[in-house]
Amino acid sequence: MSDIEQRHAGRMQRKKALIDAKIEAARIERGVLVVTTGNGKGKSSSGFGMVARALGHGMKVGIVQFIKGAQSTGEEQFFRRFPDEVIYRVMGEGFTWETQDRDRDIAKAQEAWDEARKLLNDESIGLVLLDELNIALKLHYLDLAMVLADIAARPVVQHVVVTGRGAPAELVAMADTVTDMTPIKHAFAAGIKAQPGIEW
Amino acid sequence: MSDIEQRHAGRMQRKKALIDAKIEAARIERGVLVVTTGNGKGKSSSGFGMVARALGHGMKVGIVQFIKGAQSTGEEQFFRRFPDEVIYRVMGEGFTWETQDRDRDIAKAQEAWDEARKLLNDESIGLVLLDELNIALKLHYLDLAMVLADIAARPVVQHVVVTGRGAPAELVAMADTVTDMTPIKHAFAAGIKAQPGIEW
Repeated sequence: MSDIEQRHAGRMQRKKALIDAKIEAARIERGVLVVTTGNGKGKSSSGFGMVARALGHGMKVGIVQFIKGAQSTGEEQFFRRFPDEVIYRVMGEGFTWETQDRDRDIAKAQEAWDEARKLLNDESIGLVLLDELNIALKLHYLDLAMVLADIAARPVVQHVVVTGRGAPAELVAMADTVTDMTPIKHAFAAGIKAQPGIEW
Repeated sequence: MSDIEQRHAGRMQRKKALIDAKIEAARIERGVLVVTTGNGKGKSSSGFGMVARALGHGMKVGIVQFIKGAQSTGEEQFFRRFPDEVIYRVMGEGFTWETQDRDRDIAKAQEAWDEARKLLNDESIGLVLLDELNIALKLHYLDLAMVLADIAARPVVQHVVVTGRGAPAELVAMADTVTDMTPIKHAFAAGIKAQPGIEW
């Protein structure tokens, strides 16, 4: 082989090694950030389905719900059955978004975020579901930069799922997978009331 | 009151009674048909989230999965834990959509539908999840009219959730709630492989 041929072969080998490394990196299992948003049905339920999957794979799961209605939900009733596998937190008991006391709402949201941060710092937890977090962000009850920084700083193999309408653009930019749940039609519009097992 | 006034009042009262009955009917709890379709992530996981909700409300649930990969899924591992509450059926063991044997595929799909029909005939079951049914319909492995008739004939309080890409227009027309899971972005496109707990 001539000198020129040898240098060319060397360049090709280094190039191939770089491509191989890139392919390998893409294959590494790592935690993904999934965002479900939009106006259609399925955002939170999709998050809870991923919780079930993660539990099926033997992972520990953490859940923080950033909304609290008058009645406890089916998902809460169900997943609280597994206290060794699921850490379940709901934003301030009795909390609703209908209150006019903004300072109180911000304090409750911050308390809930403090719980979320603990989960995001816990290497033993495989998946963290931050249900309806987007609403708290949309209402500016939580600082977006703080939330993004805490999510980015989580353990490398930990999955995070964020649900709720109006996901901020910065969160979408940071996410690996984003779905917009687009309503084609909804039973509410036909006068059918919200059904246990379906909507809550 | 004059005769004319009395007749007018009577008409008004009957009209009001009719409207009241209509409002009441709309409020009655009845089973809904939910369809999740589209190319984005969240169709099946949303169905499994509704399963969790229904279990939390003390319902019995039936699941038929119209697809079978090489490995068992997280959702299957998890929900098979509750044999008293969840009837879990998976289309022909070892089945994949990659086979070229169309007759065999049709037979397997029909067997799975026979299981689904049993669930749709069972008044003790509050929610039936027909996971990836849309794919079997899209490939004409099942007769659409038969499927729609069986779903329509279910007990009045039973919920049905159908998932999968390419929901047929007739199913969408019959459904109460339909969501198109629209992909904004997906981790696969960035070279990240499918993650346990997230995609399966």
